[in-house]
Amino acid sequence: MNLSERSWTDVADTDTNLAVVPVGSTEQHGPHAPLGTDVLTATAVAEAGVDRYEGEAILAPTIPVGVAAEHRQFTGTLWVSEDSFRAYVRETIESLASHGWDRVVVVNGHGGNVDALRELCGTLVRDETAYAVPFTWFDGIDYGAIHPDLRMGHGGPVETSLVQHVRPELVREDRLDAAAEEGSEGWGEWQSGVNLAYDSAEFSENGVVGDPRDGGPAVGEQLLDSAATALADLLLTVRDRAVSRPPHRDASE
Amino acid sequence: MNLSERSWTDVADTDTNLAVVPVGSTEQHGPHAPLGTDVLTATAVAEAGVDRYEGEAILAPTIPVGVAAEHRQFTGTLWVSEDSFRAYVRETIESLASHGWDRVVVVNGHGGNVDALRELCGTLVRDETAYAVPFTWFDGIDYGAIHPDLRMGHGGPVETSLVQHVRPELVREDRLDAAAEEGSEGWGEWQSGVNLAYDSAEFSENGVVGDPRDGGPAVGEQLLDSAATALADLLLTVRDRAVSRPPHRDASE
Amino acid sequence: MNLSERSWTDVADTDTNLAVVPVGSTEQHGPHAPLGTDVLTATAVAEAGVDRYEGEAILAPTIPVGVAAEHRQFTGTLWVSEDSFRAYVRETIESLASHGWDRVVVVNGHGGNVDALRELCGTLVRDETAYAVPFTWFDGIDYGAIHPDLRMGHGGPVETSLVQHVRPELVREDRLDAAAEEGSEGWGEWQSGVNLAYDSAEFSENGVVGDPRDGGPAVGEQLLDSAATALADLLLTVRDRAVSRPPHRDASE
Amino acid sequence: MNLSERSWTDVADTDTNLAVVPVGSTEQHGPHAPLGTDVLTATAVAEAGVDRYEGEAILAPTIPVGVAAEHRQFTGTLWVSEDSFRAYVRETIESLASHGWDRVVVVNGHGGNVDALRELCGTLVRDETAYAVPFTWFDGIDYGAIHPDLRMGHGGPVETSLVQHVRPELVREDRLDAAAEEGSEGWGEWQSGVNLAYDSAEFSENGVVGDPRDGGPAVGEQLLDSAATALADLLLTVRDRAVSRPPHRDASE
Amino acid sequence: MNLSERSWTDVADTDTNLAVVPVGSTEQHGPHAPLGTDVLTATAVAEAGVDRYEGEAILAPTIPVGVAAEHRQFTGTLWVSEDSFRAYVRETIESLASHGWDRVVVVNGHGGNVDALRELCGTLVRDETAYAVPFTWFDGIDYGAIHPDLRMGHGGPVETSLVQHVRPELVREDRLDAAAEEGSEGWGEWQSGVNLAYDSAEFSENGVVGDPRDGGPAVGEQLLDSAATALADLLLTVRDRAVSRPPHRDASE
Amino acid sequence: MNLSERSWTDVADTDTNLAVVPVGSTEQHGPHAPLGTDVLTATAVAEAGVDRYEGEAILAPTIPVGVAAEHRQFTGTLWVSEDSFRAYVRETIESLASHGWDRVVVVNGHGGNVDALRELCGTLVRDETAYAVPFTWFDGIDYGAIHPDLRMGHGGPVETSLVQHVRPELVREDRLDAAAEEGSEGWGEWQSGVNLAYDSAEFSENGVVGDPRDGGPAVGEQLLDSAATALADLLLTVRDRAVSRPPHRDASE
Repeated sequence: MNLSERSWTDVADTDTNLAVVPVGSTEQHGPHAPLGTDVLTATAVAEAGVDRYEGEAILAPTIPVGVAAEHRQFTGTLWVSEDSFRAYVRETIESLASHGWDRVVVVNGHGGNVDALRELCGTLVRDETAYAVPFTWFDGIDYGAIHPDLRMGHGGPVETSLVQHVRPELVREDRLDAAAEEGSEGWGEWQSGVNLAYDSAEFSENGVVGDPRDGGPAVGEQLLDSAATALADLLLTVRDRAVSRPPHRDASE
Repeated sequence: MNLSERSWTDVADTDTNLAVVPVGSTEQHGPHAPLGTDVLTATAVAEAGVDRYEGEAILAPTIPVGVAAEHRQFTGTLWVSEDSFRAYVRETIESLASHGWDRVVVVNGHGGNVDALRELCGTLVRDETAYAVPFTWFDGIDYGAIHPDLRMGHGGPVETSLVQHVRPELVREDRLDAAAEEGSEGWGEWQSGVNLAYDSAEFSENGVVGDPRDGGPAVGEQLLDSAATALADLLLTVRDRAVSRPPHRDASE
Repeated sequence: MNLSERSWTDVADTDTNLAVVPVGSTEQHGPHAPLGTDVLTATAVAEAGVDRYEGEAILAPTIPVGVAAEHRQFTGTLWVSEDSFRAYVRETIESLASHGWDRVVVVNGHGGNVDALRELCGTLVRDETAYAVPFTWFDGIDYGAIHPDLRMGHGGPVETSLVQHVRPELVREDRLDAAAEEGSEGWGEWQSGVNLAYDSAEFSENGVVGDPRDGGPAVGEQLLDSAATALADLLLTVRDRAVSRPPHRDASE
Repeated sequence: MNLSERSWTDVADTDTNLAVVPVGSTEQHGPHAPLGTDVLTATAVAEAGVDRYEGEAILAPTIPVGVAAEHRQFTGTLWVSEDSFRAYVRETIESLASHGWDRVVVVNGHGGNVDALRELCGTLVRDETAYAVPFTWFDGIDYGAIHPDLRMGHGGPVETSLVQHVRPELVREDRLDAAAEEGSEGWGEWQSGVNLAYDSAEFSENGVVGDPRDGGPAVGEQLLDSAATALADLLLTVRDRAVSRPPHRDASE
Repeated sequence: MNLSERSWTDVADTDTNLAVVPVGSTEQHGPHAPLGTDVLTATAVAEAGVDRYEGEAILAPTIPVGVAAEHRQFTGTLWVSEDSFRAYVRETIESLASHGWDRVVVVNGHGGNVDALRELCGTLVRDETAYAVPFTWFDGIDYGAIHPDLRMGHGGPVETSLVQHVRPELVREDRLDAAAEEGSEGWGEWQSGVNLAYDSAEFSENGVVGDPRDGGPAVGEQLLDSAATALADLLLTVRDRAVSRPPHRDASE
Repeated sequence: MNLSERSWTDVADTDTNLAVVPVGSTEQHGPHAPLGTDVLTATAVAEAGVDRYEGEAILAPTIPVGVAAEHRQFTGTLWVSEDSFRAYVRETIESLASHGWDRVVVVNGHGGNVDALRELCGTLVRDETAYAVPFTWFDGIDYGAIHPDLRMGHGGPVETSLVQHVRPELVREDRLDAAAEEGSEGWGEWQSGVNLAYDSAEFSENGVVGDPRDGGPAVGEQLLDSAATALADLLLTVRDRAVSRPPHRDASE
């Protein structure tokens, strides 16, 4: 049930403890994909997953600005600090929980949000305010079942395919070649198990990682299907997860 | 130019210092209007105003959760603390300013956001980070020119009319009578110039203030037109406003 | 009962739940009125209102520095950030509430404090720590009953009259003409319902808004009388106001 | 020059870099002395010291609520957290410094404020915002020159004497015997160099430490004189103290 | 050069820009391994890596308490919030940078610290205060070269082996069987790419993950050697890494 | 019982409510004594005191970086802000209390930590989270019993002697003369009871205060013995101290 489109009396009549909060980012995705990519994809996956879920779940509005300072050298990238992001999302979830929707899945569309979401959900869980987990949709895909070479990247084949499926007019097909040619093959610069880079401008000329031509709308449809299934399965589990935490452990000896 | 729908290279090619940030709230608007009313209306006004403005302005994504604890007794209302809201919006504007869009109008759809937006814009202005002002669309309307009795309320004729115009399917027309009859006539409880109430549940049975039947889609169209004109005029002024502040004043005697 | 002038055993013997906290600001009030105007006026109104109130109320000391960055270009203006002001006043009220004085009226003498006081009182109210409301004395006056043209301004006729009444030696009568002539007629610069100005130095040469000659000690006496009555009436209401908040609302359909 | 009583144009005409900020506390001082003792004494010392100082110094309004949770079990004690106190006082000093008064002496009347004032002044000094030091008046007295047995206490002979001198009507002489008899001889409970007590209610029945009968108005006059001299001497030194900090030190070998 | 063991004049004579900050955690590591395991291992790796590095690097003291709420159900686990941890480590690095050691490697011994360290180092890097990276020693090991089945776990073969090598007396060999038998095979509970567990008490009876018998002191020696080499290599790279960040990117089309 | 060296099952089997947290600082101690002096001494005293205490007490790991900005001009000094230090130590103690060790003595080795430790322990005590007190070892010594002229200083005879006793190889005996000759006699610059200095670089050429030759290893042994006894005595008292606070006090008249 899309919270934003219903009245308070409508949602007060629901009988569910589940809420879904899409969280994106507005940031560069190369010359070919829109700045709103992570918002579009998180929203599309959240809607599809809620639809596929057999029971009822409340779909909150999508939070559009995330932790994206790593892309700030590219015009149009919006970002907030980790602290502000954590507070804003955590308090939004607290308000959901105040209405009884205290099993929450955050559907995340941006890699840079992952750590902050895990932290804020952990805070809510340890406070026993809500049981909340972040679901980063591209980490829940069975890529092998779609195409063995498909890899996430940034503005790469995975994200581009999903936008080509849900909002095809927003992908500039005429720029795909340039996007691929001036992009980077992998994310970051690595040594001794450490990523030396903090900004995508350190390793990608145009902000792209991966070859966005390695997909297309059909791949996008498969990705959405796979992510929606993973989310629906997750909702079923989260619905029955306790809000209370394990007790203090006595010595086992 | 809708930032979310264009690539970073597109927006890097613009020649403007203007950005528009719509800010709403997801909160009860009575039994007849959607919880997303303030998001819908702020977005509609921002889009229409940017369209009407003769030059170019960057349209940022709409921030959907605001300062709405005053409605928290009604199911579905989402809110964050004033601190978190100020930080989230302020840092979003800072990121816009980092790209050269440092004359910013926040288009606001919710009365509860007004003080917080004024404060955070003041912080940005006094830091000389950006020149930013909040434009609360329903405060910029020439109501007399539309209908002499039209008053803002909450889920009342002004907001309901605008939703009836832009998203008619989201207004439950069959509940308008109940909405009006169980609503309140005015906002708050007043004595000695002080509003004694902090929560809408203190003075409205169903969350409504004002009679939502005192409008309609045609009024909504007029409201949108009036707000768009006011916003376009404001953008013209803000474009030429300095970011720097007045100097320290010497004694005038 | 003036808290500062009595011993702890004296105030422990009172039987009241009411406290009054005067809050001012130390800031420019033109060339003719003292920097302490808002402290003097808030204190005078608080004392007069507590006197007029038929029961007992605890009068706390006046907090002298407020939210006044808007006047910082004028020498002598003191200010703190909104965050620090909110914390300082809120915790002061929490300490009052810890002694059983949990119905609190903040008597405010400065327009720049209004939003911050409303926010911090709201926090206390929603936490159910205390029932607290800010009373900005010049918003509680029945101006029509005094003089139809009297308007607030800044260092204008309202504030100047009250200081002329309570501390006449602090008003430089020989500067009233200059104060009026180099002052501004209205507060701010307005377009599309938005105040474009953030600092009084943007629209007033000497910091004055309004003509301070449009009053005098007799008007000041009337203002004090009117404000004291409004405050006494408010105390009577606040005394009986509950600290607890309304319950969560079920759907009305 | 008393800032609060002069106009901004008056203080803009001064030629000094010195400001004095009195800081008190509103807290229990036994059954005989007023809750405002620390405000009264800090203000009296600050006024007398500024008068005695041969040059000009700006006297700011007195900050009335401090770090006094240690007395919170006694009705009427007001307090804020250390964090809020530090922020409020520090930002007040920052506003003084913005007008060129960047050599600041905080005149403190309460032992519980000492650590917090030292910390916040240190922050200002290390930021090179201002050169600021706290002067706790009763630590600047040459007690031996007044009476060899005079010791500070709390609501004891030192504070009581000063109030007897400056505001005699506020001391309840008829309660001095009870004050002394139910009070404590020393501050705290000590072991291994550690004060085990955190609250005065742990070691004093009525909040008093020391015998308030061991002084009187004549002693109060001597105390004020001694403190004023110490403050005037301090102002002379602070006036010439640099705001800049020492450079990083190279190895001396 | 071990900072703690030398005088300030000694370290002032060094000619290096490199500092190494070991960070551990004091937390349960099963019935057989000490609560200080992560402190011991981080310190051992840091010392060995600094020794192996051909140039000079300053070795800071080990920070002993980290982000470990996930183990709080097990007695003896110490932890601080992510916010406090980030502030404490970040400011420690800022102090190192103030002396010219502004290329910093944090040697981390605890998985729970990883996200917080990455965030705080990112803050320092983006502020251009220092170039700092976290090196989590067990992520820098070439496990294949040691034993193909070796996996990290918690109190498992990797950590236990290293303690067996550097502080053998602290491992209770007689409890290894129990440790293995009541432990868990993997970390967490997974569905749809999401770890549903927030606390180790949710999936491990005694806090152990992995079989601590799958190693031994000889494996520990190899691990230390491998980690030291990886760290020395990293230091060589970090030494030459710029503190300044990439410039804002113009549109590439 | 040294927490770091035992397993969680070992410490879960203890029957005590006492924990000891050593806190030091890593900062200049002149040309002759190590930067780690305050860590070494706090640790040595804590270990000796826990040993001497007749019952059981949990010894936590030593926190190595404190409030030491006052020494930042000398290379190698590490420090964090007071806020970060308070949060880090307070939360560490909260984690100890969560396991039932809620009577806590912080053994402090650095004068600059004193105020911050008192504040954070006060916060814990007033929250009734734990009964915690800071024990600054050099304030608990009976100096008269050792040598009548022994005074604390900085890098002076007291600290130097203790390091000479516990880690003699870390004191550069060949630099003692230079240390003494270029050091300062007293701490700070005083006027009117106020220390005008905020940084040791303002009054000491090489960071030393006092003559480090006025002691030696034998004095160090006596100091350690005296401090250990004082700490053991304190533990006995703290063990039986209540965590709950005194009740609100009624008027005594």
